[in-house]
Amino acid sequence: MKTLPDCEHLLLNEQNGVLAITLNRPEVRNAMNLALVNQLMTVFTAIEQVPAIKVVVLRGANGNFCAGGDLKDMANARKAVNAGKDDVKDPFYQLNRAFGQMISQINAAPQVVITLLEGIVLGGGFGLACISDIAIADSQTQFGLPETRLGLPPAQIAPFVVERIGLTQARRIMLTGARFDGVEAKNFGVVHFVSNSNEEMSQLLAQQLAQIQLCAPNANRTTKRIMLSVGKIANKTLLDNAAQDFSMAIQSAEGIEGTNAFIEKRPANWVR
Amino acid sequence: MKTLPDCEHLLLNEQNGVLAITLNRPEVRNAMNLALVNQLMTVFTAIEQVPAIKVVVLRGANGNFCAGGDLKDMANARKAVNAGKDDVKDPFYQLNRAFGQMISQINAAPQVVITLLEGIVLGGGFGLACISDIAIADSQTQFGLPETRLGLPPAQIAPFVVERIGLTQARRIMLTGARFDGVEAKNFGVVHFVSNSNEEMSQLLAQQLAQIQLCAPNANRTTKRIMLSVGKIANKTLLDNAAQDFSMAIQSAEGIEGTNAFIEKRPANWVR
Amino acid sequence: MKTLPDCEHLLLNEQNGVLAITLNRPEVRNAMNLALVNQLMTVFTAIEQVPAIKVVVLRGANGNFCAGGDLKDMANARKAVNAGKDDVKDPFYQLNRAFGQMISQINAAPQVVITLLEGIVLGGGFGLACISDIAIADSQTQFGLPETRLGLPPAQIAPFVVERIGLTQARRIMLTGARFDGVEAKNFGVVHFVSNSNEEMSQLLAQQLAQIQLCAPNANRTTKRIMLSVGKIANKTLLDNAAQDFSMAIQSAEGIEGTNAFIEKRPANWVR
Repeated sequence: MKTLPDCEHLLLNEQNGVLAITLNRPEVRNAMNLALVNQLMTVFTAIEQVPAIKVVVLRGANGNFCAGGDLKDMANARKAVNAGKDDVKDPFYQLNRAFGQMISQINAAPQVVITLLEGIVLGGGFGLACISDIAIADSQTQFGLPETRLGLPPAQIAPFVVERIGLTQARRIMLTGARFDGVEAKNFGVVHFVSNSNEEMSQLLAQQLAQIQLCAPNANRTTKRIMLSVGKIANKTLLDNAAQDFSMAIQSAEGIEGTNAFIEKRPANWVR
Repeated sequence: MKTLPDCEHLLLNEQNGVLAITLNRPEVRNAMNLALVNQLMTVFTAIEQVPAIKVVVLRGANGNFCAGGDLKDMANARKAVNAGKDDVKDPFYQLNRAFGQMISQINAAPQVVITLLEGIVLGGGFGLACISDIAIADSQTQFGLPETRLGLPPAQIAPFVVERIGLTQARRIMLTGARFDGVEAKNFGVVHFVSNSNEEMSQLLAQQLAQIQLCAPNANRTTKRIMLSVGKIANKTLLDNAAQDFSMAIQSAEGIEGTNAFIEKRPANWVR
Repeated sequence: MKTLPDCEHLLLNEQNGVLAITLNRPEVRNAMNLALVNQLMTVFTAIEQVPAIKVVVLRGANGNFCAGGDLKDMANARKAVNAGKDDVKDPFYQLNRAFGQMISQINAAPQVVITLLEGIVLGGGFGLACISDIAIADSQTQFGLPETRLGLPPAQIAPFVVERIGLTQARRIMLTGARFDGVEAKNFGVVHFVSNSNEEMSQLLAQQLAQIQLCAPNANRTTKRIMLSVGKIANKTLLDNAAQDFSMAIQSAEGIEGTNAFIEKRPANWVR
């Protein structure tokens, strides 16, 4: 696809409307430096207006999803502060805030975002797990938010964790720095499916992709947008707007095709 | 009861303070057309100020709860639009919005609302399950939101699903159109109890009704109102208002009777 | 510790940064009267600015956590009202509101708050369970909100129950007055851990305390504050503020020590 940019730290592969993104810094267990964070944002911006891409599958290279933020960036920011470089106002703030911008953007991506969670899923990597529409974890995966053990708050990740698993579990795992595996992650509601082998993970992914293929691309985009606005705007306004979305959808080519296909008991034209 | 209206598509039966409402369009698996939606709103309006009715039990005729919205209404709306009838401004909007009004009204009903979920529970039927105070499902029940497979967003239902089961499961089931059974519905938090037979469902219902009989009618009404305002208004205001509710309750005949009965270790006068 | 006040109804014991508070009215199963409620607020106010106290462990004397509000206070308020004493404006309002103030304050306490839940945990006691960062329950513990059976709304507790376990379970247990045990409490998300003996409860507590010791005191305080603001202020503002918290933390003595200790693979200086 022409719209996909070159990215030093990401492997990109688009096929049949599914974009696979692999975090590719295996030497540091795919820890995210600022360059990688910016590349993720560039890719999601590039595909935002591309309805042909219905799904993004996000994983890490070499058996680890992501170790979190790269501490080397912190050291560089400290050097910049100590050297009195004033070209960047508060480099720590900028660095940290970029993670939240990236997670917010992927959370709101119009595509269905699937994460495949293996090895370690820490800090910012845990944040990515928390905003995926479908999360599939290996049972052995190690999840955790180690920040408070380093003297730092998981500042840009905490809100997404609370939204994902609720305050009850969030307050415990953040204030103890506890680690937990894929089975517990499913119990807490971080992930939807647990696999016990690479084969099983591939099967689970294939099943989910097959189901998504049955869903209309624009209807999915609209539905995701409606869901993400729940609790952010007043319920009555939300329902008023959603009824307008419905009216537009049912009068669109997609909605006409979908309801006709249903009545005629045949697959809709978006099903490959 | 004199206040209950005649309703073509609903069976109504009131006994001992429990109003049973049966969706009665078994030939279309109790799909809700606009007439049925309006009848539900009429009934709940009629009983809103009737404290003698403490509980509503909602089910569907002939072994299915509800197949969702009736697509024939959509076809009629399309004809009206195509014929250039301008007496109704955007019939699709009106039709869709009515579902949300109905679900919002039943959600806020002062009665304890119980749903008995059998057969299929799809679309708008799923929405009704999501706003019941007590949901009892047969283990074989098929739940799902098939809208996106028809090219449509589940516009008026999505907010209630997110409030019921949280964003994590909501985003998965809506963006894949997945079906699931009563056991999974309990795991996701859609329903409270699962039964494996008609007898077991009846027993579970009887147990819940017996517990509700112990609770004071006005206290339950007030409590439900307080609960539904959580997250909608600032916590401090909510607690201030709730303290006034408490003060009024404990000085009311019901509150005096209830605390006296407790101290005297006898049933309160509202217990039959 | 000099800052701890004398409290008639509380046993206080501070050791190694852990303050143990025991509700001590065993003759009424630690029911909370207004005096006890005020004493709890006094203690939490006294320790609010004491970072040396990292953890509060809250339990009840003689095998019961807490029976809820003391009805004798209600009787006294009624006498005051009947006697036409107008020195206190609406004593019922004041009495009830004090419970919500106390629960709100403990919810927001900068310390990690752990509850040990044994025997009965009713009404206001249930409210305390719902705002603890870590809740450990004996499997035999009896939980419940009996208020509506007494003709009263659980006015100051309802919001914290909804925040803890979600609306779906909250509406059922409040509108039926249902009781449930420690195992169910874990299933509903009221508690994090279930124990089957005093020894197991002590072990679970020790494990959690050991994990908290690894976390930096200020980072934990900041993290708890961020978490509790989720959903209360707009997400973007929350993330902007949190990035400033992060920047301050990483430039503080604690953050420098924590990241250095991590890089040097040694325990940080706050780990005893």
